[in-house]
Amino acid sequence: MKYNNLDKAASFEALKKIRPVDIRTVLTKQRIDSFSIPAGGGMQYSYAAMPVSEETVDCFQKLADEQELTEKYRSLLSGDVINLGEARQVLHQMLRGPVLQHKVIVDGQDKNAFYKEQLERIRVFSEKIRSGELRGSTGKKFDTVCQIGIGGSDLGPRALYIALKVYCEGKGIKLLDGQFISNVDPDDAAEVLSRINMETTLFIVVSKSGTTLETLTNRDLVISAMGKLEPRHHVVAVTSESSPLAHSEGVLDAFFIDDYIGGRYSATSAVGAVVLSCTCGFDVFKQVLDGAHEADEMCLEPDVRKNAAMMDACIEIYLRNVMGLPCLAVLPYSQALLRFPAHLQQLSMESNGKHVNRFGEQIDYSTEPIVFGEPGTNGQHSFYQLLHQGTDIVPINFIGFSESQFGKDIVVDSSTSQRKLVANLVAQIVAFAQGKDDKNPNKQFAGNRYSSLLSAKKLTPQTLGALLAHYENKTMFEGFLWNINSFDQEGVQLGKVLAKKVLRGCEGDEALLAYLSKF
Amino acid sequence: MKYNNLDKAASFEALKKIRPVDIRTVLTKQRIDSFSIPAGGGMQYSYAAMPVSEETVDCFQKLADEQELTEKYRSLLSGDVINLGEARQVLHQMLRGPVLQHKVIVDGQDKNAFYKEQLERIRVFSEKIRSGELRGSTGKKFDTVCQIGIGGSDLGPRALYIALKVYCEGKGIKLLDGQFISNVDPDDAAEVLSRINMETTLFIVVSKSGTTLETLTNRDLVISAMGKLEPRHHVVAVTSESSPLAHSEGVLDAFFIDDYIGGRYSATSAVGAVVLSCTCGFDVFKQVLDGAHEADEMCLEPDVRKNAAMMDACIEIYLRNVMGLPCLAVLPYSQALLRFPAHLQQLSMESNGKHVNRFGEQIDYSTEPIVFGEPGTNGQHSFYQLLHQGTDIVPINFIGFSESQFGKDIVVDSSTSQRKLVANLVAQIVAFAQGKDDKNPNKQFAGNRYSSLLSAKKLTPQTLGALLAHYENKTMFEGFLWNINSFDQEGVQLGKVLAKKVLRGCEGDEALLAYLSKF
Repeated sequence: MKYNNLDKAASFEALKKIRPVDIRTVLTKQRIDSFSIPAGGGMQYSYAAMPVSEETVDCFQKLADEQELTEKYRSLLSGDVINLGEARQVLHQMLRGPVLQHKVIVDGQDKNAFYKEQLERIRVFSEKIRSGELRGSTGKKFDTVCQIGIGGSDLGPRALYIALKVYCEGKGIKLLDGQFISNVDPDDAAEVLSRINMETTLFIVVSKSGTTLETLTNRDLVISAMGKLEPRHHVVAVTSESSPLAHSEGVLDAFFIDDYIGGRYSATSAVGAVVLSCTCGFDVFKQVLDGAHEADEMCLEPDVRKNAAMMDACIEIYLRNVMGLPCLAVLPYSQALLRFPAHLQQLSMESNGKHVNRFGEQIDYSTEPIVFGEPGTNGQHSFYQLLHQGTDIVPINFIGFSESQFGKDIVVDSSTSQRKLVANLVAQIVAFAQGKDDKNPNKQFAGNRYSSLLSAKKLTPQTLGALLAHYENKTMFEGFLWNINSFDQEGVQLGKVLAKKVLRGCEGDEALLAYLSKF
Repeated sequence: MKYNNLDKAASFEALKKIRPVDIRTVLTKQRIDSFSIPAGGGMQYSYAAMPVSEETVDCFQKLADEQELTEKYRSLLSGDVINLGEARQVLHQMLRGPVLQHKVIVDGQDKNAFYKEQLERIRVFSEKIRSGELRGSTGKKFDTVCQIGIGGSDLGPRALYIALKVYCEGKGIKLLDGQFISNVDPDDAAEVLSRINMETTLFIVVSKSGTTLETLTNRDLVISAMGKLEPRHHVVAVTSESSPLAHSEGVLDAFFIDDYIGGRYSATSAVGAVVLSCTCGFDVFKQVLDGAHEADEMCLEPDVRKNAAMMDACIEIYLRNVMGLPCLAVLPYSQALLRFPAHLQQLSMESNGKHVNRFGEQIDYSTEPIVFGEPGTNGQHSFYQLLHQGTDIVPINFIGFSESQFGKDIVVDSSTSQRKLVANLVAQIVAFAQGKDDKNPNKQFAGNRYSSLLSAKKLTPQTLGALLAHYENKTMFEGFLWNINSFDQEGVQLGKVLAKKVLRGCEGDEALLAYLSKF
């Protein structure tokens, strides 16, 4: 396998010579129908409103082949040490089921068997919580599950919970209330605790290392608020087998992850499994895994025209490294995906916001753009003014569904709310792409504002799983294209070191002392 | 008054010649102490970690003088037609009290008297709701207040409510539960309605025009779910006096705004006043107004070294138009400000995401950057990797407070959570600015990642009001510097027009039909 920088690839040189397609006039039915790829979970990825032609896509194919994208994916799946900086395998896809038939043995352990075993333990545990076989220390059934974690132990599981909650409510599936405490700001825990009954709450403390400052602090804060309740009936841990948390006496049970699941890729591990299985039921969580697994399998496809995540990654490279565009908006037309963009910020910006290649050498091209987003139509009444008429082009990922989650809807002015939602989404794609001429420059829309669309019938758990995996796999392929390590995060270390220095009294550091004196 | 484009200003030409200060080595106590300006509500604005020198600030002063920033602000306050495109006055500062002594008469009405009258009506009404003098149609006291609105009728009031809620809880001030429905996605209303008791809920329908698609649809959806409850006991309107909503029979009362308060500037109008006074009490809301008024008054100061909003605006121009930086991160180290960045997205990107000057002429320089953010320390475990080690520089606005809202805290490892929060904030400012050398490029931090800091003792209602006004006034000054109209939003029209076309069946539009067929 060759790991070459993007700017060493001959096909990237060729790609740079291909001019962006003017999309104001090309949106024919034929293009919209054909520039579309199944993405798993019933989703379609459409890139008709991206500035690419068949020639561009041919060049993407050459680039994908030259950078050996599927080979590298196979290598990752086979248990090669892809995370070179930390000398670790990368195994999050295996959480959803084996994509290849290879056994992956690490540290003397069959990893597929290990993940299956943890999942089975979580199934059994979650059913005991939901049935009332396991109860709080005063004998009451649990009706609330509160995750204590930060970063990947918070953002992914929270985004999934918000989406699955409304799915379950719409389907009449029994739901325990899910709550999340993440921030070291004590107001975060205080606000959540003011809303819940601790007697009927199960707390899940999630930290792979078992040493995360925010999470241990919040655990202690929660336990100190428990009064006469016994923590060992109310607290479970999700951590690595060797962590101090795993062997703490004050926990009801512990479920395990390992070093081969990065935090931002951990939503389908025990990190997401415990809270989602307890709140929404194991069956629902299993469907998330199935959707993700389907998307993972589709990524083996070497033809970029049939591999949605790979196409999405190649388009991002074109937008970022050929066109020089620094941002990406992710705009789900689904209130259920309220916090999905926040998860994607971590997934993409922590994975690929790097200035060195996978060998630790400085690189000379741009990597991950800024990712942001809010649900539509809310965003239309907020920052879309800039997207339509600002001075920079911001490419967009739209996400949308034919049906709502609850199905509680009403006809006003001869259309349902869901129909209005979809109408707005479709209108925005075309408005951004085609623009509008007007003699008055203030009413002029330049067009050529690029977007893709992930669409499906409904945001089912399978669709949600595929959506999650689509972005994970897109991120992975981008990392391969940029030749960076998408699985470490050295950039978070310096802040941690300096925060400890501040807590030790700043050790004479003038800048730290001067800023601290403001508080 | 001269309204000149930024690139016609001689001082902008001079500013372009000033090189950014290398901030890796300049963070002395003296600089940190002196590069600091009171910003109202007990806040300090610190810009020591921005790439500016005394020379740069001298040039800012020339630019501020040349673009006549305080004169234009005075003109706005005096009731001149600043919103030229819509031929309207801009009067949101007056909502907090008169900054100048001029009377402003528009449409034959003394505007100060009008806003005072509405505020007094809201005081009386909110006290009746909170005391139980006004009750739902089954005779029960209201315990929940649900705002139905979108854009400025949602984001600002919601951000303020989240912050004030924890302040009130911490202070033991009686709180009614606040809820918000915004999205036309029917799942938004369905999810909120699944959580509340309609018998004890007051709904506030907010739409200046009385014609906002999302809001009217959600109002109808809510009313259809009321069953035997009588809407005229449960629904109030916030709208303009001439709107159809104002004269609807099915409302308990109506409170008025007018055309001189833009949606994104309306949080201190009846749009925010009714929901915040009912949930948190009028006194608390009045303190928000007082804090905002203090910040408004401070903006009259022509010396940029004494005018925090003006300094912040000038620095933004330098980052954007001299250094070419396309994004701005707003990172509050306060869980109470969870949704404040979402409000700022609308405020800044809808106001200043423009490609024409205030006369409707195309301009040749960049305007508003992309604004995004999440609370710290959460963001540290998410996208900070990119901010520290990504290939682009993203300037940062930090916000932080000495004390938490609840005051419920715990000592772990000899420091409280609040102390850890502040330590992290201070550490990040210095880490971003100074970076760290390392032989291993993967552990190398380039530094020169610029930030400012708004700090105060505690996020009181006054501080919150000043914070809100700081960003409103910064946005206004930026608009004056760019010579754009920060108070219209023509860029949202095309999408609305096309959405209606889709709802009429697409009228043969091939692109709309082809995209619609995906749903």
